[in-house]
Amino acid sequence: MHETRNHEIPPHPDRHFASARLGIIGGGQLARMTALAALPLGCEISILEKNPLSPAAQLAPLTVNGDWADAHTLRKFAASVDVITLENEFVDSAVLRQLEEAGHKVFPTSASIALTQDKLLQKEALVRAGLPVPAFCAVSSPETIAAAGEKLGWPLVLKTRRNGYDGKGNFTLRSRADIPDAWRALRGDINELLVEAFWRFTQELAVMVTRGRDGATVTYPVVETVQRDHVCHVVQAPATITPELAAQTTDIALRAVTAVGAIGSFGVELFLSATGEIVINELAPRVHNSGHYTIEACACSQFENHLRAVLGWPLGSTRMITPAAVMLNLLGTHRVPGRPLGMERALSVPGAHVHLYGKAMCGPGRKMGHVTALGQTIDEAMATARLAANAIHFDPIT
Amino acid sequence: MHETRNHEIPPHPDRHFASARLGIIGGGQLARMTALAALPLGCEISILEKNPLSPAAQLAPLTVNGDWADAHTLRKFAASVDVITLENEFVDSAVLRQLEEAGHKVFPTSASIALTQDKLLQKEALVRAGLPVPAFCAVSSPETIAAAGEKLGWPLVLKTRRNGYDGKGNFTLRSRADIPDAWRALRGDINELLVEAFWRFTQELAVMVTRGRDGATVTYPVVETVQRDHVCHVVQAPATITPELAAQTTDIALRAVTAVGAIGSFGVELFLSATGEIVINELAPRVHNSGHYTIEACACSQFENHLRAVLGWPLGSTRMITPAAVMLNLLGTHRVPGRPLGMERALSVPGAHVHLYGKAMCGPGRKMGHVTALGQTIDEAMATARLAANAIHFDPIT
Repeated sequence: MHETRNHEIPPHPDRHFASARLGIIGGGQLARMTALAALPLGCEISILEKNPLSPAAQLAPLTVNGDWADAHTLRKFAASVDVITLENEFVDSAVLRQLEEAGHKVFPTSASIALTQDKLLQKEALVRAGLPVPAFCAVSSPETIAAAGEKLGWPLVLKTRRNGYDGKGNFTLRSRADIPDAWRALRGDINELLVEAFWRFTQELAVMVTRGRDGATVTYPVVETVQRDHVCHVVQAPATITPELAAQTTDIALRAVTAVGAIGSFGVELFLSATGEIVINELAPRVHNSGHYTIEACACSQFENHLRAVLGWPLGSTRMITPAAVMLNLLGTHRVPGRPLGMERALSVPGAHVHLYGKAMCGPGRKMGHVTALGQTIDEAMATARLAANAIHFDPIT
Repeated sequence: MHETRNHEIPPHPDRHFASARLGIIGGGQLARMTALAALPLGCEISILEKNPLSPAAQLAPLTVNGDWADAHTLRKFAASVDVITLENEFVDSAVLRQLEEAGHKVFPTSASIALTQDKLLQKEALVRAGLPVPAFCAVSSPETIAAAGEKLGWPLVLKTRRNGYDGKGNFTLRSRADIPDAWRALRGDINELLVEAFWRFTQELAVMVTRGRDGATVTYPVVETVQRDHVCHVVQAPATITPELAAQTTDIALRAVTAVGAIGSFGVELFLSATGEIVINELAPRVHNSGHYTIEACACSQFENHLRAVLGWPLGSTRMITPAAVMLNLLGTHRVPGRPLGMERALSVPGAHVHLYGKAMCGPGRKMGHVTALGQTIDEAMATARLAANAIHFDPIT
């Protein structure tokens, strides 16, 4: 959090009292919530993160303020823990493979990260497994985008193969005329790109799957997600779809996660069309925003199950302990310090569970926290979650 | 956790992003679980604790490794937080009063701590409020103990007025002949003592009450506790008593907590006799072992409600979200490093929630963690909790 914690990891000859030493690469809210699940199980948590004010650093005294792209830092970090995991898919898989080759345990594996962090390789792996995805192809120039548009039809979605998230790295082209803008926006001159047929969905679904080191899997309920400006905004659990469709969606998600050799909790985003057709939109090789509701709504959360998976422990029950749950993201609107206001009003809403990520700065569309509410129905949970979420805002100190 | 964190608290001119800055005096498991409840609500947690390997230090980078008996340390600590709370009743109330006089917010208040940390003053306050307690009186010599025994009858319980816990500071005298041993064991030459009539109970009950800064109160269900060697071992929620008795017990607990001007979560331990008579055994001015089950079993845990109370936030619902819950303490047996073994087996028990406190050293009777299980019945929850708790033990590295 400040310079006195920016220390080298000391040797701990006398500190053999943790159930396991888990290192997390990345210190954002996903690492923070994983750490919150890990601490009650007696784990010692180390975080490797550049930002000294990261959300996870606030509860991990063994935070290393360093760059995970630096091989020396990463090796030292790896040597101080039993198992390494990631909170994002942006760490280069080649770097992770080096750690594995040096004998460190990295889960998900570098091979699994390689297959998911590159959207082209991910889609190819899903197609090989016989799984449904929108038509896609790699593009390398404005001309190849134009050719793909003629083949796949317009609109067309241009994407960077790597490092995209929350709509960043995506551009929807209505016609050939948009190619120059799209090429510039996604920096086609330096980024590898692919295009995808625009898929007209009526619902966006998501499924969290946790897969253990022994290949055992558990699946969470199919949920419905609502995006706002490409950022996950609302999650309704379970999704209001037929049991048959839910079973089919779950099956696809399970096969997708298995296809990339997942270990840990993986998020599977899917599209559902008006005719009941399902395609996979994207895999995330990590805990996922669509699974935050599991903290309160399921017997064992996506975070605890991720931990169990990567540590080689048995997986917990994914059963919902309530008929319905709704999660609303708390998204920032302005670039101001991340101090939450309105807590009194939010906490006066019975049954609302407020989660704040402790981000130092707020920003437009930035995920600052979330609210989960349980209920007998989605409508009931939604009403509760809305009341609390609407009460919280982020403002400078006045 | 190690010397690099044993730092002075630096000024944080740029760190105004916490919902509140909470300072906890004491870094044991109660502080740890309070911090785990506070972090999701965006609180910044600072711990003041002598033991650099304390359970709470593992998740509070702003830990001050210092002695709370040192006025200078305490003042600096107080200046770095918005509200101070305690995880034990051993901090001298006079020292806390000095902090209050310097303008710091301390909850529970020094007045409330004064009335509870001294068992004689506590019992006098309860009697003044018309509440039932076993007969008691102060004693100052072996002779006054003998006189009290003639008056109250044998057996007689000798107690230190302060600093007792888990049976430490208690001695049961079967007859006048035990006086010299009891006097020596409790160091009557240097400790202030009281005696209490031995109360033949058939059940030990406990109630957690949270009282806000505005005087609002919430009560948790009446639970039954089972002690082993004076240490809380089993908690069954709710207690298997009649609704009338539960209502009467809750009413007594609520009045007791109000009588000492509580702010925060307070534990009330009670005895129930074969004839249905209830007396208060003891008040604890803090979260309490008998309330750990609330983490999973209640809408808002004793820890979150403590936090809400001391920060002046609205109190949460104490409703049980399950028909029954059982908590079993994980008690140490030997003096060995506190590393838990058997996690794989414990986590393979569906529905068992394992909590480890991360203590560096294990010891006979030491509270190393607990297991909570929910169920449709107490028997079902007990069976689940036992399976998991029996799997965990603490051994040196082999």
